[in-house]
Amino acid sequence: MSAVAVPTKSEQTRDLIAKTALRLFRERGYEATTMRAIATEAGVSVGNAYYYFASKEELIQLYYEHSQEDHSEVCEAILARDREFRARLLGVLRARIDTLQPYKEFAGKFFKYAAEPSSPLSPFSAESGPVRDAAIAVYRQVVEGSTLKTDPEIRTDLPELLWLYSMGVVLYWVYDSSPDAEKTYRLVERTVPLIDKLVGMARLPGMRGVVREALSTYRDLRK
Amino acid sequence: MSAVAVPTKSEQTRDLIAKTALRLFRERGYEATTMRAIATEAGVSVGNAYYYFASKEELIQLYYEHSQEDHSEVCEAILARDREFRARLLGVLRARIDTLQPYKEFAGKFFKYAAEPSSPLSPFSAESGPVRDAAIAVYRQVVEGSTLKTDPEIRTDLPELLWLYSMGVVLYWVYDSSPDAEKTYRLVERTVPLIDKLVGMARLPGMRGVVREALSTYRDLRK
Repeated sequence: MSAVAVPTKSEQTRDLIAKTALRLFRERGYEATTMRAIATEAGVSVGNAYYYFASKEELIQLYYEHSQEDHSEVCEAILARDREFRARLLGVLRARIDTLQPYKEFAGKFFKYAAEPSSPLSPFSAESGPVRDAAIAVYRQVVEGSTLKTDPEIRTDLPELLWLYSMGVVLYWVYDSSPDAEKTYRLVERTVPLIDKLVGMARLPGMRGVVREALSTYRDLRK
Repeated sequence: MSAVAVPTKSEQTRDLIAKTALRLFRERGYEATTMRAIATEAGVSVGNAYYYFASKEELIQLYYEHSQEDHSEVCEAILARDREFRARLLGVLRARIDTLQPYKEFAGKFFKYAAEPSSPLSPFSAESGPVRDAAIAVYRQVVEGSTLKTDPEIRTDLPELLWLYSMGVVLYWVYDSSPDAEKTYRLVERTVPLIDKLVGMARLPGMRGVVREALSTYRDLRK
């Protein structure tokens, strides 16, 4: 696809439906927003809306994709700037909160759908696989483009572990009621240096055993 | 109250309503079970049901209380038996899974209500305070009755940190689809020795700085 390609009528309609859906989810909540309401507000027929999206879940997956694309794009500049692991990780996590923050209210209400273990909207579901892989790829860049020195065993799993840590940060953010998510930014600013220290210490003889045992436990028990 | 006290008629009715509610929550799900349905199944009037419980949330809080009482009771025997920190923590966590396991299916479906940040059913809510305190008290016993040697700073916060860890185990259990929660037991069996090692290492000069910084971050950012 060329960079100057003009979107087709079909692409425009799809985009309009997606944007309308997201606005209604934010205004009325996920449960109260029906496909019919989305179609009406977007000025298309219900059949037309279903032609583009089989369900509300698909519309949420699209939101996940866009949110991840936003984040990956912002991270490119951050990762081009700094070689130091600590600065790279801090920049990427700050940017994650920045890009999520406009959806704070929606996230609080929507969280219960994403938190249900069997839901396709869970970040651990098969359906969320592509977005999850794109997210982990950012943390792989954080590690691989850095000057970090650590135990080779930990290096292999580190991108996925950092993604899990980022999910913990997002979980904290969902529960954070401080103005402008000030506490979540503080969480990141205070935990990133700790992670950096611990990852560095993993090379020390006294630590290596514990770290390797922790990694083997993680590999054994991940889904 | 004497140990041989016969429950009053009023206590019997309250208990019957609570047991019926829990059965219906399990059979029909939390949302689909109305106070009216609970009253009908228990053979009491709707007014009578509301006399004992102002809402479904109160019935769930009662379930939390009973579940915690079950666990605290089982732990008494475990903690009377062993002085070693590792064995005490392992016993207490295994018992936590044992007591939750009959509610596995219910927990998977119910989780989304407890996970909503603003919900009184969240384990972090004001309403859940008494149950949370009772749970933390168990971990205080785990630490205080043990022969554990660690940094005095970590010792103060350790009961609450162990409770948080147990919440992480419960979160993993909710998502665990292995038969008889076999993976959750394995998680506990593999992470308890790691925690024991790390808590012991916190006294070492190289570790103490990182541990204290982590604790100060935790105190700063807890709700």
